[in-house]
Amino acid sequence: MTSPSYDDQNIFAKILRGELPSEKVYEDENTIVIMDIMPRADGHVLVLPKKGSRNILDIEEAELTAVAKTAQKMARVLKQAFDADGITIHQFNEGAGGQMVFHTHFHVIPRTEGISLRPHTGEMEDSEKLKANADKIRAAVAAHS
Amino acid sequence: MTSPSYDDQNIFAKILRGELPSEKVYEDENTIVIMDIMPRADGHVLVLPKKGSRNILDIEEAELTAVAKTAQKMARVLKQAFDADGITIHQFNEGAGGQMVFHTHFHVIPRTEGISLRPHTGEMEDSEKLKANADKIRAAVAAHS
Repeated sequence: MTSPSYDDQNIFAKILRGELPSEKVYEDENTIVIMDIMPRADGHVLVLPKKGSRNILDIEEAELTAVAKTAQKMARVLKQAFDADGITIHQFNEGAGGQMVFHTHFHVIPRTEGISLRPHTGEMEDSEKLKANADKIRAAVAAHS
Repeated sequence: MTSPSYDDQNIFAKILRGELPSEKVYEDENTIVIMDIMPRADGHVLVLPKKGSRNILDIEEAELTAVAKTAQKMARVLKQAFDADGITIHQFNEGAGGQMVFHTHFHVIPRTEGISLRPHTGEMEDSEKLKANADKIRAAVAAHS
């Protein structure tokens, strides 16, 4: 692989170390799930491995498996929490692949029939609305476990 | 889960049973990889579990893990085969989530800096071009193993 190596100064690494705030909705031994602050639909979350890797090109198998399992769990949780008709998962690798933060992550996005994903405007979601959606997900996580 | 159950008359199930043709580029115990016949970029492949499941909402853990591992392998293979700058992975669940064939699959798409994904026109790729790209991937798979 000729990809650049992992840089632990990325914002997800800082969130994982508690140096930056986030709306965390789920955590287990190997993964955490946080709200995307520029959601493309209500309830859009990001699944991250705790251990640092840049993306799918360098992530270790155990971390990849853990992230996939948490993404599945979140798909089920979001479907219920948002009464979603479907779930879209995006996973971007390197800038050309759509990646903006270079710590592996899976986007898990609840979808509603007939409603397109919101474009990436770069505008941050209102923090009260983000918190309300996070609370909804936390409640559904609790109901699932 | 209130999702409809798996219907083994979908086109990927027919491909898996050999009832429909495909450009297969990889196969292991639990997964196969075929060319997307309406590619959004050259080298766009689909990773499928052999065992039937509708999508991420109902797939069993062993199959999900196998598909994720094959998706990673293909990301690495495509990066090399197409000298790609990045990799985009899409995984769609239910019609509202973007799913069109109801057998679990991961889209793995090589990306080039500055080039957007082609839109879904519904038009099929020229079969010679598809075969040439498939050959390129098969050669890279062989070099990786």
